[in-house]
Amino acid sequence: MTSYHSINFAQKISKLDELWSPRVISEMNEYQFKAVRIQGDFIWHDHPETDEAFIVLQGRLRIDFRDGAVLIEAGEMFVVPKGVEHKPFAEEEVHLLLIEPRGTLNTGHAGGSRTKPNDLWL
Amino acid sequence: MTSYHSINFAQKISKLDELWSPRVISEMNEYQFKAVRIQGDFIWHDHPETDEAFIVLQGRLRIDFRDGAVLIEAGEMFVVPKGVEHKPFAEEEVHLLLIEPRGTLNTGHAGGSRTKPNDLWL
Repeated sequence: MTSYHSINFAQKISKLDELWSPRVISEMNEYQFKAVRIQGDFIWHDHPETDEAFIVLQGRLRIDFRDGAVLIEAGEMFVVPKGVEHKPFAEEEVHLLLIEPRGTLNTGHAGGSRTKPNDLWL
Repeated sequence: MTSYHSINFAQKISKLDELWSPRVISEMNEYQFKAVRIQGDFIWHDHPETDEAFIVLQGRLRIDFRDGAVLIEAGEMFVVPKGVEHKPFAEEEVHLLLIEPRGTLNTGHAGGSRTKPNDLWL
């Protein structure tokens, strides 16, 4: 018999030693599931070619848009539509699951010093 | 300012009055997030054209394969690869989030009486 193993979100998150640095934990077709710890402010950016799904595992995430904001608590999700500028913010540490196509950069097309290497597995 | 709203998994699950009947709660590009309550045995089936992601929100899911099985607890996920025959089983009620391309049937290509209408939103 083959041994199959589930992926435990809390275990994966506990291995992340850097904030704002998403790491791949699983793949589904051409999409990736990424675990990330965040706290504080990010930069304005968008992903012109894809929607981006956020699932909050712990804490309370705010995503600012140019015309409003959404609050996402643990046990909730939100999908940012493609091409919509957004800026994640977490007053206290938030643990997140991101789902997006392979190759999606954390800063989208904005670039800059907050851009992290892509496609790194945890 | 525009008002944006997160999607709360527990709230959505509480509106499901039928077991084994996935309902769409969100979309990301051509993919759908589906909430489902299950208990007991399902049928053997596969999805020849796509992987299928399972995220367990509550309870303990077992997915049987022809050569083994995987246990998935709350806070864990597993991706069943395309074309791999599988049979979900839940001794006690399990609350699940499924992620798969729009148009994916719950029974794959197996058909039969357990097949539910697809693309119904909750």
